[in-house]
Amino acid sequence: MALHFPPQTLKWDISGVEIGFRRELPALIRQLEGFRLKSCESLPPFFSLPDEDIKPIIDVSLSLKRFKHLVVIGVGGSSLGAEALVSLHGGHKEGITFLNNLDPLDCRRVLRDGNPEDTGYVVVSKTGTTPEVLAQFSVVLQHTKNQLGKNWLDHWVVITNREKGALRDFIEKESVRNLVFPSDLSGRYSVLSPSGLLPALWMDVDIDELRLGAKNITDSWVDGDERAKNLLKVAALYYLHHVKFNRAISVMMPYGSRFRRFARWYSQLWAESLGKSIGGGNFAGSTPLVAMGTADQHSLLQLFVEGGDNKIYTIITVDDYGEHQLIPPLLSGPEADYLKGRSLEELTKVEARSTIRTLRNLGRPVINIEFPGINEIFTGELLMSYQLITISAASLYNVNPFDQPGVEANKRLTLEMLSEL
Amino acid sequence: MALHFPPQTLKWDISGVEIGFRRELPALIRQLEGFRLKSCESLPPFFSLPDEDIKPIIDVSLSLKRFKHLVVIGVGGSSLGAEALVSLHGGHKEGITFLNNLDPLDCRRVLRDGNPEDTGYVVVSKTGTTPEVLAQFSVVLQHTKNQLGKNWLDHWVVITNREKGALRDFIEKESVRNLVFPSDLSGRYSVLSPSGLLPALWMDVDIDELRLGAKNITDSWVDGDERAKNLLKVAALYYLHHVKFNRAISVMMPYGSRFRRFARWYSQLWAESLGKSIGGGNFAGSTPLVAMGTADQHSLLQLFVEGGDNKIYTIITVDDYGEHQLIPPLLSGPEADYLKGRSLEELTKVEARSTIRTLRNLGRPVINIEFPGINEIFTGELLMSYQLITISAASLYNVNPFDQPGVEANKRLTLEMLSEL
Repeated sequence: MALHFPPQTLKWDISGVEIGFRRELPALIRQLEGFRLKSCESLPPFFSLPDEDIKPIIDVSLSLKRFKHLVVIGVGGSSLGAEALVSLHGGHKEGITFLNNLDPLDCRRVLRDGNPEDTGYVVVSKTGTTPEVLAQFSVVLQHTKNQLGKNWLDHWVVITNREKGALRDFIEKESVRNLVFPSDLSGRYSVLSPSGLLPALWMDVDIDELRLGAKNITDSWVDGDERAKNLLKVAALYYLHHVKFNRAISVMMPYGSRFRRFARWYSQLWAESLGKSIGGGNFAGSTPLVAMGTADQHSLLQLFVEGGDNKIYTIITVDDYGEHQLIPPLLSGPEADYLKGRSLEELTKVEARSTIRTLRNLGRPVINIEFPGINEIFTGELLMSYQLITISAASLYNVNPFDQPGVEANKRLTLEMLSEL
Repeated sequence: MALHFPPQTLKWDISGVEIGFRRELPALIRQLEGFRLKSCESLPPFFSLPDEDIKPIIDVSLSLKRFKHLVVIGVGGSSLGAEALVSLHGGHKEGITFLNNLDPLDCRRVLRDGNPEDTGYVVVSKTGTTPEVLAQFSVVLQHTKNQLGKNWLDHWVVITNREKGALRDFIEKESVRNLVFPSDLSGRYSVLSPSGLLPALWMDVDIDELRLGAKNITDSWVDGDERAKNLLKVAALYYLHHVKFNRAISVMMPYGSRFRRFARWYSQLWAESLGKSIGGGNFAGSTPLVAMGTADQHSLLQLFVEGGDNKIYTIITVDDYGEHQLIPPLLSGPEADYLKGRSLEELTKVEARSTIRTLRNLGRPVINIEFPGINEIFTGELLMSYQLITISAASLYNVNPFDQPGVEANKRLTLEMLSEL
């Protein structure tokens, strides 16, 4: 069944995905409808972000505009949202580096290749205590202090919570420009907050459109219209394929490199929100797997087609790229002949269609999300939709989608081992 | 149990991974020992690559050295090996772009930002018929013809099989420089062939060391020494955790961004070699999942710790980075205090140790591969080891590790749909 909303909205096609759930699905959707109503009484913290005043973020981004480069230091949710936005919509501009992992070589490269004179620096940590972020921040900060002298202060922006932590102390002590990371907002739901929007604004991503797309979805959610009902149904389908058919892997396979970081954003959102112990030796949450079209047709597709039937697939396609790069007829031979008169955009679309059809012909569940075109409105829709799908699925698994208790023990162990060094 | 080979070799620590297989494991290892002996009589095509004459590859790489940039057009196995080598060991140099996915924006960026005058171009396709490669190649080739006139020929190198296909026809027609992609070599086992070595050489990766590391492993394999036996054991353990305990996901989690492309190389090798139907509605092959340390401690670790026990973990760590980037004491607060006097390298190691310990304490199977340092010898070892582990696992699943029948139907469908456009 393909749902058709007004032309300017994402199209969710779930042909064949409902098979096998004729009884369970309506019951779960009713249950989720109750969840939706309840959520409207006590809205999740990410819900109101599209309505918030973003003048402080715009002001800070303007102050960074004079720099040719921007280095963003953050990890996980503090970085993935911004990365997704920049990859999807910053293609026409260069100059941003995400120091998003603890690799000494990455950090050295920023010190070696960067010129602090024309670089702005943003450090992001909600708690202000993440060791990898504090460590890299300290190294890069020292470098800019050495290179810029007293001027270092003009180059830095800190995003952290209002109350506490090493970064908050740093802000107070040094009077450095800063934006507030809301204390009640989990990192993985922060893409529409300063951590996502500041780098995006610097890269000229249209965040008004982005917020508009997200707002369309929150409006739908409150109204409980057909679009909201679709999100509830999609959440129920992910859940059912996991718990009833043991499809324990949720493949996110967008067609196009620019979606790769979005897929990683999804992967964190899904894994960290749903991967929870529910007692009695039972576990919630399917495992997200990032695959890339078309590259992974030459890598993972063999397994998708002939391997175990333990996956549900979400394939993102684009209807109109807005451009046509014609493939010049420079080669001969049967395969080259197929390409004559075609464009790269058409070929990408056909490859995607063909993968979807191949998987569906095998009876594998495929959710196809089609972007009418690549613009920020649809990205805003997609991001808000997945946040709502995730908390809906969490309500079915009966887990808290906003905490991450499982990593706390590991954090304590890290600090313990550090102090023993 | 930790195996200790001479200091200059990878260390494979499989503490706790054998639990539950006291009877099955010895039987499977005996079976694999038979497979090893048989494989020595009829060696797989990738096996002899470390012994082959690479003068033609070196000559071509020298002819490309005068260019400031290199664009490599390929997909899947034609690209992933080179990407792994360059990411791991090309850190001191810039200038290479892999056009490794069909995304019209990627291609446009190469046309827009690149200057053909100082750019070399390499196109790789074993069959010479991959539509995504032919399409992007045609677009980029036309661009260089427009920009460079007759000189375009000096800028291009083609890697394809000796016999047939659109790229072979192109070579013959235009007398363009070329290297041979052996016809009997599957793309995913080609990292030590021209497709992997040419871009690596151009980036100053030490391929003598790389080949030496790989040769150490093939020698071990032929000798059947302790190191070969360890590879057989590791293959058996991946297999057993999948088929006996339904650990259907094989997580590859290296610590350090420079290993990300290696993890993708592994992911293709594993998925495409083992993901096969074995008749009667049964399927071989676990699903590879790429995770990155430390970033994914803030993304997937929650799921690894509290989610379902359906995974086996391979965690790659580095013992000696050869450098110490000290973390300057610029911050205050308890978490910042832990970092005082430490280096980025120490912190990375502690984070990795802590993740391994956390998972093992939960009884999750973790294979820890430790690099003594980051150099090409160990990379050669790792790549050859995984090729041998993969074909060993394939012999247990009783599948052909060199074909990919499941993607052929999809390829036909793509061409069919293209011709209908």
